[in-house]
Amino acid sequence: MKLLEDRILLEGQVLPGDILKVDSFLNQQVDMQLIDALAGEFYRLFCCEGVTKILTAESSGISIAAAAALHFRVPMIFAKKTHPEKGANGCYFSRMRSYTRGTDCLLTVSGRFLSASDCVLILDDFLARGSAALGMLAIVRQSGAKVAGVGVAIEKSFQDGGRRIREAGVRLESLAVIENMSPPGEIVFYRGD
Amino acid sequence: MKLLEDRILLEGQVLPGDILKVDSFLNQQVDMQLIDALAGEFYRLFCCEGVTKILTAESSGISIAAAAALHFRVPMIFAKKTHPEKGANGCYFSRMRSYTRGTDCLLTVSGRFLSASDCVLILDDFLARGSAALGMLAIVRQSGAKVAGVGVAIEKSFQDGGRRIREAGVRLESLAVIENMSPPGEIVFYRGD
Repeated sequence: MKLLEDRILLEGQVLPGDILKVDSFLNQQVDMQLIDALAGEFYRLFCCEGVTKILTAESSGISIAAAAALHFRVPMIFAKKTHPEKGANGCYFSRMRSYTRGTDCLLTVSGRFLSASDCVLILDDFLARGSAALGMLAIVRQSGAKVAGVGVAIEKSFQDGGRRIREAGVRLESLAVIENMSPPGEIVFYRGD
Repeated sequence: MKLLEDRILLEGQVLPGDILKVDSFLNQQVDMQLIDALAGEFYRLFCCEGVTKILTAESSGISIAAAAALHFRVPMIFAKKTHPEKGANGCYFSRMRSYTRGTDCLLTVSGRFLSASDCVLILDDFLARGSAALGMLAIVRQSGAKVAGVGVAIEKSFQDGGRRIREAGVRLESLAVIENMSPPGEIVFYRGD
């Protein structure tokens, strides 16, 4: 999506450790007009799938999922990240690794909010190693719900999250795919084979 | 706001420790159609204040702030909660107490996102003792920005957060004000003096 790619080129900062900093418009300060355009694109891509719930993980996925929920007119759920020792009473859960923070956490969703009659669209801001998205997939499968697919704003295709989601048989739509990046700021987008 | 009060009466659960559980529509599963109505009301209340940024705190304030940012057509910023020992390099920050969790944390906003030329509307889902709202007020004041006011979906007026914000000379708008509540589910709304 050109609108998003242009914004990444304009404001994204490539930091050591394959980190793309986009906190001026995506994940601390959030340009909701841009986010709403991304949400509209997710609606165009997934509107025929019979989506009944949108699932994301706190915190930086919430703004995209919230905007998308307005387009789809369905509830949005955000999975909470808790300390692994806290447990997950009455919840669907999955253990996940945050590579940015170097810590493990439990991703949890109350058992009251997903059931076998749901069809769930998983949305997030970033897809790198796929830890959060795969954790959310595990949660949806525990609930017996159908997965409509996974949508992310930015995929780093040089990491293996995208491959792992596709190998799980799940449709993945990424609005900007970064094939390669290196400091101090070279960003190459994937343009198809 | 009747729409919100009715939903609280329908789905809210009063738990011991003055906790109102509204996670079926406000802070885990989120009814974005309801949230958009709340956001529209905040727009009506604050649209003449020259708001340039909307500030909230992760995670449960984000959906309201995101929806409001679409009405105001300004960026939304969410303050991050980090461990006090992590520090806040290059950030405005405030130490806050989470009474629900019984822990302290640092609320931080990058110094790049607020400045003296901004006029900031602070939004959150809940106001109880006011810890998060007062922390955000401290952050806005550090930046030199003007405060348009504080808006919350639900205020518990039997706790002192509302008083503390008004005593700080800040306009507070609460869309539902709970004067009293006790298990197993009695909720009394404030109806004016």
